[in-house]
Amino acid sequence: MKKSEDIISIFTKNMRNIRIAKELTQEELSFNSGLHKNYISDTERGVRNISLKTVEKIAKGLGVEIQELFK
Amino acid sequence: MKKSEDIISIFTKNMRNIRIAKELTQEELSFNSGLHKNYISDTERGVRNISLKTVEKIAKGLGVEIQELFK
Repeated sequence: MKKSEDIISIFTKNMRNIRIAKELTQEELSFNSGLHKNYISDTERGVRNISLKTVEKIAKGLGVEIQELFK
Repeated sequence: MKKSEDIISIFTKNMRNIRIAKELTQEELSFNSGLHKNYISDTERGVRNISLKTVEKIAKGLGVEIQELFK
């Protein structure tokens, strides 16, 4: 993590990169995580200050450890 | 991270362990992070589903990278 980047930018960049690397659409991640697809879209665009429980759902939906989303 | 543990338990355990290892009181972490000491206390007891921006403030207040709080 670079000091100059804020946590939401780091999280959303990793979320998107992992989703694409795993060849998941936003709809598929929505289904896997139990979150609405508009919520996934908003989160990935960085317009939400999401909670830890939502981070956990996204990590599970992507099939990665939580730390992977903060590197 | 163990699969059986939820994200809030993992976060609060790490937060408390790091704070104690760094010999910081909750008041000192409150001062360093800019969060109220009651908020620090509630967070450490796991009664809050905190947001990413709050996670960032706590990491800065503890002087650690964000990933350290999710191991």
